[in-house]
Amino acid sequence: MIHVQSLLGCLALTLVLQGGEPAAPRPLLARMAEEALTRGQAHSMLTELCTRAPKRLSGSPGAAAAVAWAEARMRTIGFDEVRLEPCKVPRWERGSIERLTLTSSGAAVGERLSICALGGSPATPKGGIEAEVIEVQGLEQLAALGEAARGKAVFFNRPMDPTLADPFAAYGGAVDQRSRGAVAAAQAGAVFAIVRSMTLSLDDHPHTGSMRSAPEPCVPAAAISTLGAARLSDLLAREKSVRVRLELDCRFLPDVESFNVVGELRGASLPDEFVTVGGHLDAWDLAEGAHDNGAGCVQALEVARIWRALELRPRRSLRVVLWMNEENGSRGSLAFRDARAKTIDKQVFALETDRGGFAPRAFVANSTGASLDRLRELVAPLAAFGVRGVDHSTGVGADVAALAQLGVPCAGFVPEGSRYFDVHHSALDTLDSVHPRELELGALCLAWLCHAVADQEHNLERIPTAASGVKPH
Amino acid sequence: MIHVQSLLGCLALTLVLQGGEPAAPRPLLARMAEEALTRGQAHSMLTELCTRAPKRLSGSPGAAAAVAWAEARMRTIGFDEVRLEPCKVPRWERGSIERLTLTSSGAAVGERLSICALGGSPATPKGGIEAEVIEVQGLEQLAALGEAARGKAVFFNRPMDPTLADPFAAYGGAVDQRSRGAVAAAQAGAVFAIVRSMTLSLDDHPHTGSMRSAPEPCVPAAAISTLGAARLSDLLAREKSVRVRLELDCRFLPDVESFNVVGELRGASLPDEFVTVGGHLDAWDLAEGAHDNGAGCVQALEVARIWRALELRPRRSLRVVLWMNEENGSRGSLAFRDARAKTIDKQVFALETDRGGFAPRAFVANSTGASLDRLRELVAPLAAFGVRGVDHSTGVGADVAALAQLGVPCAGFVPEGSRYFDVHHSALDTLDSVHPRELELGALCLAWLCHAVADQEHNLERIPTAASGVKPH
Repeated sequence: MIHVQSLLGCLALTLVLQGGEPAAPRPLLARMAEEALTRGQAHSMLTELCTRAPKRLSGSPGAAAAVAWAEARMRTIGFDEVRLEPCKVPRWERGSIERLTLTSSGAAVGERLSICALGGSPATPKGGIEAEVIEVQGLEQLAALGEAARGKAVFFNRPMDPTLADPFAAYGGAVDQRSRGAVAAAQAGAVFAIVRSMTLSLDDHPHTGSMRSAPEPCVPAAAISTLGAARLSDLLAREKSVRVRLELDCRFLPDVESFNVVGELRGASLPDEFVTVGGHLDAWDLAEGAHDNGAGCVQALEVARIWRALELRPRRSLRVVLWMNEENGSRGSLAFRDARAKTIDKQVFALETDRGGFAPRAFVANSTGASLDRLRELVAPLAAFGVRGVDHSTGVGADVAALAQLGVPCAGFVPEGSRYFDVHHSALDTLDSVHPRELELGALCLAWLCHAVADQEHNLERIPTAASGVKPH
Repeated sequence: MIHVQSLLGCLALTLVLQGGEPAAPRPLLARMAEEALTRGQAHSMLTELCTRAPKRLSGSPGAAAAVAWAEARMRTIGFDEVRLEPCKVPRWERGSIERLTLTSSGAAVGERLSICALGGSPATPKGGIEAEVIEVQGLEQLAALGEAARGKAVFFNRPMDPTLADPFAAYGGAVDQRSRGAVAAAQAGAVFAIVRSMTLSLDDHPHTGSMRSAPEPCVPAAAISTLGAARLSDLLAREKSVRVRLELDCRFLPDVESFNVVGELRGASLPDEFVTVGGHLDAWDLAEGAHDNGAGCVQALEVARIWRALELRPRRSLRVVLWMNEENGSRGSLAFRDARAKTIDKQVFALETDRGGFAPRAFVANSTGASLDRLRELVAPLAAFGVRGVDHSTGVGADVAALAQLGVPCAGFVPEGSRYFDVHHSALDTLDSVHPRELELGALCLAWLCHAVADQEHNLERIPTAASGVKPH
């Protein structure tokens, strides 16, 4: 039961959103909310994407299917222009063998622990590699071991810190083990690496992700589930020596021609100035990438759909970009930036959504001073929908990073983060983990902010950056 | 993939929470966070409650089991005092027959639609009642029908408004159909009522809840799932007449002696002044009431457990209350208030958690002016954990309402609301719908705020209220 009195506080907001007079035009935010929350297509688009291209790692046939779907979907939305912008992407395949088997430890011999290859890992020789396990809490501890790791299997087992308020900070504090562990293990003379999955959950799902690899010297590397990590660590605490065999048959194939998918809605008075919004179309291959980053893709598409449905045409143009290859190379975002090198000053704002399709919380932006204040004013009406404000950050997202380095004011959408790393890069990142209304609320917030920035009188200030003189490669 | 740069913004917070110097005592919030997020027992307690007393509607054997569990659990936490405070509660039973069957409409004859009895409904005669359905959008439309509803089945089908930002506002805008529909239908001469479930989801789960009933004249009434409502409405649009038969065998049994479960931790210097925190122990009977309100119960218990673990003893006493009978009578909260009538000025603050075990968002409070500002200062450090602030509201929760009417400063915990009405009062309100970390984050925020209020130098101002002269009944 809910106390009815507790609901009265909402009435003022309701009146604001619905407008006091029936005859008066309703405020734009109320119209956007109605469109997003009663006729929203974000979730149905996500269902399509996850059905048509459930596996879409860069260079795969699934990624090509995703490009085709996105282009077709953009055409039904009614962009003024839709095009594919080429980028050459790496193609790494997981293969069909991923096994970690205990080969010592008495009763546990033959037991398998739940793992998956890290993206970019080389294969093991056929039949696998067998080695004694040495557990470390991170790269520093491995370096300090000197020769002790030679010939061993290095087990990186530092967890994400659950006491940190922000799970993204906890991820940032642990992910070096995944991204650099295989290279560090090779430097230490180890024969393979096992990395604790990047999640706060205790379950039996391994979480993949990218790692530095060829042309750098590296060893085969796998992510182990957190339950598997607990099991292995427990054995190591009890046995004098624990040996395991790793078998992987993942591999790199030649690079593949792929595409960013781009759609544009022309602005009314400043059509050569662009507000960009996007997510990445590629996804890890253990599930359909519903949150990472199907959600971001359909939210960006929904921004344009909402504008079209309400016949909005603000001053500046909108560019929706579904970047390719965010997960293992960022070739798409680099190609996108390079194609805009000569018009970088016309890229007035770029907004990325790549933290899952959860309920809105905030934005981050690389602006400061008056421009940050302006962004805060623009998002203030979104407080009703859960957006508490805009935080300054020098790095707001992986795909807008290349633009940010050239001085483009960039922002990132920050939804509720509690559940993101439960599913991130794992077999759990499935359509049913996305809440339709939460996804729609995010799309609404993006549609509002993009419109507000595209229609304001003056642009946000460019970002002063040491890298602003850097030539695009 | 997550851009590492985007994580740098979290480092400052991390440093604050972890303390800069190893030798310095860590800030209290960091210690509370470590206790709540690495050794938290909220979720294990919730598992116990949902296992030992999965059905615990007031007056039921399950409710008695819940009281016994709560008392025992309080004793293991180590309160200074634990006791049961009596309250006499209504006992309504659902029975075993809940059927709504189409009896006309050609091909649909015999089809059943998913319903459940509303709490407090009388039974139908054996064999049910058959009637023609008349659909209305609310109580006003029913009243305007005059004699047209006589002998009919009134189908209240106004949905919760999905365009409202706050699902609680949408609930408040639709729930009069459930709470007053059966009485209004009786006044209109109708023979039974069918009420669209209070949820934004489209699925086949009916959501129960309380309704006004005996001694007022009322008809039998059932909630219909939103898919069932859509089906019925569609038939009504296509057929000249749609007839249905309702069968319910729910009933009232004599009132039962029950209890609020109360535990106290004595304050260091002002032990006769109490900060109260609580949720309600009873729950609707379609599932284990994991969110509504198992979550609130275990969060309140966890507040005391965290204080004990950190050996905190602020100035004032803490009182944890697990109220009985919130769902269909509020007898527990009224008895609790009555027992404090003579010491009402010593009840310095009461905090309720009854909006689900989701990630923290905010608090509401009935304070204004300087006291509201003070509360905002006290919760400011919780921004790190997602709390954006304190909103003023005259009604912050059903169980603290009785205290609020006597001038007690009261507050309510407001977690993320997107998913609450998906499960509220339905068979979906199960343990697996509660995210352990989200539950823990809420407990942490409650532990912090209760401690801050209990340890401050001056009390919040009493709430001036027209009802402050009202005698407790």
